[in-house]
Amino acid sequence: MQSLLVLSGPSLNLLGTREPEIYGHTTLSDIHARLQSQARAAGYDLEARQSNHEGELVDWIGEAPARFAGIVFNPAAFSHTSVALREAVAAVPIPTVEVHLSNVFAREEFRHRLVVAAAARGVVSGFGADSYSLGLDALIKILRQG
Amino acid sequence: MQSLLVLSGPSLNLLGTREPEIYGHTTLSDIHARLQSQARAAGYDLEARQSNHEGELVDWIGEAPARFAGIVFNPAAFSHTSVALREAVAAVPIPTVEVHLSNVFAREEFRHRLVVAAAARGVVSGFGADSYSLGLDALIKILRQG
Amino acid sequence: MQSLLVLSGPSLNLLGTREPEIYGHTTLSDIHARLQSQARAAGYDLEARQSNHEGELVDWIGEAPARFAGIVFNPAAFSHTSVALREAVAAVPIPTVEVHLSNVFAREEFRHRLVVAAAARGVVSGFGADSYSLGLDALIKILRQG
Amino acid sequence: MQSLLVLSGPSLNLLGTREPEIYGHTTLSDIHARLQSQARAAGYDLEARQSNHEGELVDWIGEAPARFAGIVFNPAAFSHTSVALREAVAAVPIPTVEVHLSNVFAREEFRHRLVVAAAARGVVSGFGADSYSLGLDALIKILRQG
Amino acid sequence: MQSLLVLSGPSLNLLGTREPEIYGHTTLSDIHARLQSQARAAGYDLEARQSNHEGELVDWIGEAPARFAGIVFNPAAFSHTSVALREAVAAVPIPTVEVHLSNVFAREEFRHRLVVAAAARGVVSGFGADSYSLGLDALIKILRQG
Amino acid sequence: MQSLLVLSGPSLNLLGTREPEIYGHTTLSDIHARLQSQARAAGYDLEARQSNHEGELVDWIGEAPARFAGIVFNPAAFSHTSVALREAVAAVPIPTVEVHLSNVFAREEFRHRLVVAAAARGVVSGFGADSYSLGLDALIKILRQG
Amino acid sequence: MQSLLVLSGPSLNLLGTREPEIYGHTTLSDIHARLQSQARAAGYDLEARQSNHEGELVDWIGEAPARFAGIVFNPAAFSHTSVALREAVAAVPIPTVEVHLSNVFAREEFRHRLVVAAAARGVVSGFGADSYSLGLDALIKILRQG
Amino acid sequence: MQSLLVLSGPSLNLLGTREPEIYGHTTLSDIHARLQSQARAAGYDLEARQSNHEGELVDWIGEAPARFAGIVFNPAAFSHTSVALREAVAAVPIPTVEVHLSNVFAREEFRHRLVVAAAARGVVSGFGADSYSLGLDALIKILRQG
Amino acid sequence: MQSLLVLSGPSLNLLGTREPEIYGHTTLSDIHARLQSQARAAGYDLEARQSNHEGELVDWIGEAPARFAGIVFNPAAFSHTSVALREAVAAVPIPTVEVHLSNVFAREEFRHRLVVAAAARGVVSGFGADSYSLGLDALIKILRQG
Amino acid sequence: MQSLLVLSGPSLNLLGTREPEIYGHTTLSDIHARLQSQARAAGYDLEARQSNHEGELVDWIGEAPARFAGIVFNPAAFSHTSVALREAVAAVPIPTVEVHLSNVFAREEFRHRLVVAAAARGVVSGFGADSYSLGLDALIKILRQG
Amino acid sequence: MQSLLVLSGPSLNLLGTREPEIYGHTTLSDIHARLQSQARAAGYDLEARQSNHEGELVDWIGEAPARFAGIVFNPAAFSHTSVALREAVAAVPIPTVEVHLSNVFAREEFRHRLVVAAAARGVVSGFGADSYSLGLDALIKILRQG
Amino acid sequence: MQSLLVLSGPSLNLLGTREPEIYGHTTLSDIHARLQSQARAAGYDLEARQSNHEGELVDWIGEAPARFAGIVFNPAAFSHTSVALREAVAAVPIPTVEVHLSNVFAREEFRHRLVVAAAARGVVSGFGADSYSLGLDALIKILRQG
Repeated sequence: MQSLLVLSGPSLNLLGTREPEIYGHTTLSDIHARLQSQARAAGYDLEARQSNHEGELVDWIGEAPARFAGIVFNPAAFSHTSVALREAVAAVPIPTVEVHLSNVFAREEFRHRLVVAAAARGVVSGFGADSYSLGLDALIKILRQG
Repeated sequence: MQSLLVLSGPSLNLLGTREPEIYGHTTLSDIHARLQSQARAAGYDLEARQSNHEGELVDWIGEAPARFAGIVFNPAAFSHTSVALREAVAAVPIPTVEVHLSNVFAREEFRHRLVVAAAARGVVSGFGADSYSLGLDALIKILRQG
Repeated sequence: MQSLLVLSGPSLNLLGTREPEIYGHTTLSDIHARLQSQARAAGYDLEARQSNHEGELVDWIGEAPARFAGIVFNPAAFSHTSVALREAVAAVPIPTVEVHLSNVFAREEFRHRLVVAAAARGVVSGFGADSYSLGLDALIKILRQG
Repeated sequence: MQSLLVLSGPSLNLLGTREPEIYGHTTLSDIHARLQSQARAAGYDLEARQSNHEGELVDWIGEAPARFAGIVFNPAAFSHTSVALREAVAAVPIPTVEVHLSNVFAREEFRHRLVVAAAARGVVSGFGADSYSLGLDALIKILRQG
Repeated sequence: MQSLLVLSGPSLNLLGTREPEIYGHTTLSDIHARLQSQARAAGYDLEARQSNHEGELVDWIGEAPARFAGIVFNPAAFSHTSVALREAVAAVPIPTVEVHLSNVFAREEFRHRLVVAAAARGVVSGFGADSYSLGLDALIKILRQG
Repeated sequence: MQSLLVLSGPSLNLLGTREPEIYGHTTLSDIHARLQSQARAAGYDLEARQSNHEGELVDWIGEAPARFAGIVFNPAAFSHTSVALREAVAAVPIPTVEVHLSNVFAREEFRHRLVVAAAARGVVSGFGADSYSLGLDALIKILRQG
Repeated sequence: MQSLLVLSGPSLNLLGTREPEIYGHTTLSDIHARLQSQARAAGYDLEARQSNHEGELVDWIGEAPARFAGIVFNPAAFSHTSVALREAVAAVPIPTVEVHLSNVFAREEFRHRLVVAAAARGVVSGFGADSYSLGLDALIKILRQG
Repeated sequence: MQSLLVLSGPSLNLLGTREPEIYGHTTLSDIHARLQSQARAAGYDLEARQSNHEGELVDWIGEAPARFAGIVFNPAAFSHTSVALREAVAAVPIPTVEVHLSNVFAREEFRHRLVVAAAARGVVSGFGADSYSLGLDALIKILRQG
Repeated sequence: MQSLLVLSGPSLNLLGTREPEIYGHTTLSDIHARLQSQARAAGYDLEARQSNHEGELVDWIGEAPARFAGIVFNPAAFSHTSVALREAVAAVPIPTVEVHLSNVFAREEFRHRLVVAAAARGVVSGFGADSYSLGLDALIKILRQG
Repeated sequence: MQSLLVLSGPSLNLLGTREPEIYGHTTLSDIHARLQSQARAAGYDLEARQSNHEGELVDWIGEAPARFAGIVFNPAAFSHTSVALREAVAAVPIPTVEVHLSNVFAREEFRHRLVVAAAARGVVSGFGADSYSLGLDALIKILRQG
Repeated sequence: MQSLLVLSGPSLNLLGTREPEIYGHTTLSDIHARLQSQARAAGYDLEARQSNHEGELVDWIGEAPARFAGIVFNPAAFSHTSVALREAVAAVPIPTVEVHLSNVFAREEFRHRLVVAAAARGVVSGFGADSYSLGLDALIKILRQG
Repeated sequence: MQSLLVLSGPSLNLLGTREPEIYGHTTLSDIHARLQSQARAAGYDLEARQSNHEGELVDWIGEAPARFAGIVFNPAAFSHTSVALREAVAAVPIPTVEVHLSNVFAREEFRHRLVVAAAARGVVSGFGADSYSLGLDALIKILRQG
């Protein structure tokens, strides 16, 4: 049984309490639980982690190929600036799908620039917690197409 | 039974023959057929159209609320320049989900700018024909949440 | 009796229903009716058309000199990007007055750039439906000064 | 009987002598006289002033609400750079209509940027002395709509 | 006997009447006639069309491979902005040669950017009606080299 | 007993009436009174002036060293554009502390550029009327450190 | 008794030894000690921490509301680039005051851009160690105004 | 006997005391005296004025043609930003020579942009007080060539 | 019998050996020979030169009017940067046609900027060695039209 | 015996497996071993570390002067964005030599900007694992020159 | 008796024949002759040279200190791009005065950037052949002040 | 025995006398002598040349493959602007190593852009005369790896 990795970036641990008018009331645990069921139903194991540390995310991505078949990744604030995460995603041979809760293209100018996304397979942005589900779905489709 | 509208922009009628190393061998009719099944399975009617004319797409979007509950829209080349399509999408009260076959963030700089997307609910980019399916799925989730 | 042409660009057919907090509740037919009276009172015929198609607007402007003495033109979303409309306006020997319902200079940055206006005689922006009336008034003053 | 204020910015006192190929032969006094008649015919008092001093224009705008119901303002060279005038216009509760003799969008690039206009109700540009008349007309329409 | 397609963009139907100081007195029909003879002399059929509609030009380019061996294309105002035409040209397997009547590099800054040209085989700019003849000559040389 | 100079730029005379959602209900006189007490308590005289004229502010700064030991300066709208005020501040040997009522970094892009501040000792921004008090405190600390 | 948190970013642990011509000879411990006294005198507890890790600062800010009433924050080098810290500050309901030892507006161009400051209540910059004291004072004023 | 006008902009009244490492120890009175002699020797009257007020400089330039045959103008800080002074210089039919004490091209980037100079006959920059003498000499040469 | 001058810029002497995947296997001598025949057939003498020295090319262009009726010029790497060559071409009264082997608009961004071309009559780019032939043809057409 | 510190940034732990077409098959351990020998041969101790955490690298650099005489530093992805590392390098009194495996100037535009390098003594880029050896050699030369 | 060197850049050998509406009818020999007299009258020898070769100008400037006390330099087209000439001027210990025939600030945007001028003592621009005389005068004043 | 070529660009002939605070007191002859020994010790011939002429450097690079196995190149001022040298380096099949005496990344902004380096194998910058030695060492390593 293959495992999938779900990674979330800075301040997503605050989800549900933080700026709910933008990010909604669902917590990251709620999302993780929902993704676990969705993965299991599709025949995959799923592990979900969050970090405020760019370096820890780079560590996890670099180690991922040893245990995981693919990554669903919400780089959050790092999306717009982190060359290190872009290179980490590019450096591993497993596919990464980038997801965003909000529609970054409808927000401030600086959020329109997606630095990490260039190394991802694709991007899902703007559907709240459903962005993660759709991203997981996309990842599974990629894995099934071999 | 609610109807959904799928719109595709310029040169997507050539899909399957055109630059297959970027866009694959699936034709737009293949995609339309697959979306019809997916919609029907979810309890929706679906109508799919393609146009090379920005004005025709604006017409269709403006008339959509009379017959459709939501739109899945691949603006193709117009994604990066069309203020008219952005305003058409913003002008109608039904939700639009923007989709792209390729990962636009991994291509030329000018494709990173998504003018229309600011008026859409969200964006799905980079999963080939699956971008349409995922976008349709996203639209249906939005409609179900009311 | 000279005729005048009033042209309106994309999504203005939705006026009155679309984003009324920006564009108000008056419909384009209301505006056309009011302009007809104003023109007649000043001794001119007036014909009013709307199109979502940049190409159709270029066609109409190119053919205008055969039947019309001048043009009141609201290029809407095309104002900020269309070199084709700028050249069409520049290519005909009759005067064009550009009008905008909203004050484009008080909105998003990208609306501050007026590509078409360089070829017009002048611009009236920000007075709602009155922008058309003032623009028509301006056009008539130009025609009367020969 | 309500009073209206007409303000003109730097070097407009030279109108009629200065660069007549751009600005025409009408003097600012001619324009003021014409606006007085137009205002009187519409049932308003009108006072017209010119200054080369940005600070004096800021003073006049700040004091205007005490005596005037609205402002027609040609900021001239200050249009493109003055944040102070923009804020003065924004700071007073009476409406301001910005006017320009020439079509600024058909001139040098730096004239396309209208800093003050963001705080005005609307802009009239390109109709020579008639820009003032049309601007006054626009202001009166705004005042009548309450 | 192979056929060649000559396409001309917006407002070129006005050629000969429009801004003759830039574009000369030759009409588009004159040019078409001359190109017909030139093609026939070289052993090719030639069909020439003009449109003010970007979408119609995209249609024609997409359908061209079924009937034509190559395209001579003057995108006119669309040259500087149309990603849709760039992609249409890139999407078809037959060669396109881009032509311009005027020397676009000697005109306004915004005309120096050639968006469509990236997908063409080459560009001929600045020789008036002769740009078409030279472009046709270039196209024939390309076809002959296989 | 040393004297300190407090200077405020354009439209700050309207404080308390102008855009209170951004600038609050305190008037400039209230602020001046409060600063007088604060200065007196610290053993300094304090004189407070306001001007809408950049030139008058330059005059006052140039003459300041003859009577004042330091300046608290809110350049308001001039902060973002005035090279003349920057040079005036740089030209005098007494220290200047720049203050802003609002947090300029949380407002429009053009307010993030602080032209005058390069010549000041430091900047206090975003604490409403307290910005002046904190700025005065900062100035006094500088003077006491010699 | 409410607690306040003082955070300092990368390389501030080297203060007093590092580039003393820019940053002075006071150490961070000196500053912390002085802030403790100042806080205590005002009736607050104060805890001061330093980290070279952006992620650790994000952690601390996210956890702060559980124990602290407000934050004085010197993001140092992160000020100019960190979207993650900006979002962390925006995500918590307690006020943050940003402080800088040097006058960032008088240094290199890249230091004029304050990314984090957009989420802070205000900024104090340029007064050496006194920037912290003034920032603490500002924070206490904010807390007292409720 | 023709008269010449010498104008100096903001903070030049402080010359000799202000930043002497850039501007030297000569006062503006010294320079004026020297220019008087130089003018007299060449058969001209000369009047020299200084103002910190952009508006006053605009006034003086606008009135100059009535009494003066030409202008030597050091716009100082206004050189880099003032469209109003550029237009004042352009609006009068007498020649203006722009002078700068320092070599503006060897200083900060923002001083390389000379807004006013576009309307002057020429520029002399970098020779300290001699820039005025050389500029006066240039003006006299222009006047003598008629 | 009139003479024509063909000039080629830096590293074109290496043609045929250098980066053949971009520039092909034809040598510059091959091209020169072909152009000689083409010119002779049209009744012109032709002299062809190559230099890696911008200054030598400026020399040759400046001296050309004494012996030549027109120039075909491939400025190669100098195309994108040389103001000196642009001015040399502008300074001589004989026509210059600019040619490029590759389609510069399909290559790196910095090659899209054609500095010299602004002074040429027109440009031919992208047809390999045929660009020279087409350029010579264009030049002869210009000369024949007088 | 003096010690030297070799630091490598994010994802360099993956060296040898990651994108070998850009970075080669040598592992970081191979490089470290080779540098140890090289240092020892020159009479120095050498310690080599790698981290994906910007903050850990800042920690190490800040602590380095206590144990090391100089640093060879490959900031990898952080090279192009990290002000924190630039300041860390600038804050310590020992010399740092920056090295890159690939020639960053031959890669994507964003890699041409070297933020950290401004604080280093020099840069060696493009020689694969030899960049480290050459950088170590450069550091030793600096140390020997005192 | 000290010697002075006058250098003129590309295409200035064509002066008098080239674009006389911008550069006038005086030849470079006329200017050289006039400068010789002016120098002699002031007690200096003067040698004047022209070159179209940037490298030759760099040679001459590098060798100048051996024979000349100062340089009057018109870099012409090289003014706006040549870092090599800027460095040559900066590398020699004798003063250089830069001169321009036309007022470069009243011409195309790209001529407003003066790359070489940063290394010169000062600039004289816009007075035709008199720019050289004024520049020579400026150089002599510099030499006399030691 | 293979030969190596060392090339140095404009004003490097002045090394040792020119701006010694940036470039040191070593002359180019000193450097050349040292490189000769270093090459000989490694079993190579070495020839060293300097030129102020971009064209001469292009000539030498184009001819180099006939006699040399590789190039160490300090393009000096040409580094930042010369497309011609970039193309010359790219056009020859032997490797080039670019060297700089100073750390260009620690100097003015315009020196951070390395135009030629994109075509080199790698870059060594900032180690004074040792940059040449390290560059030669790098070149020899490349040659030995075949």
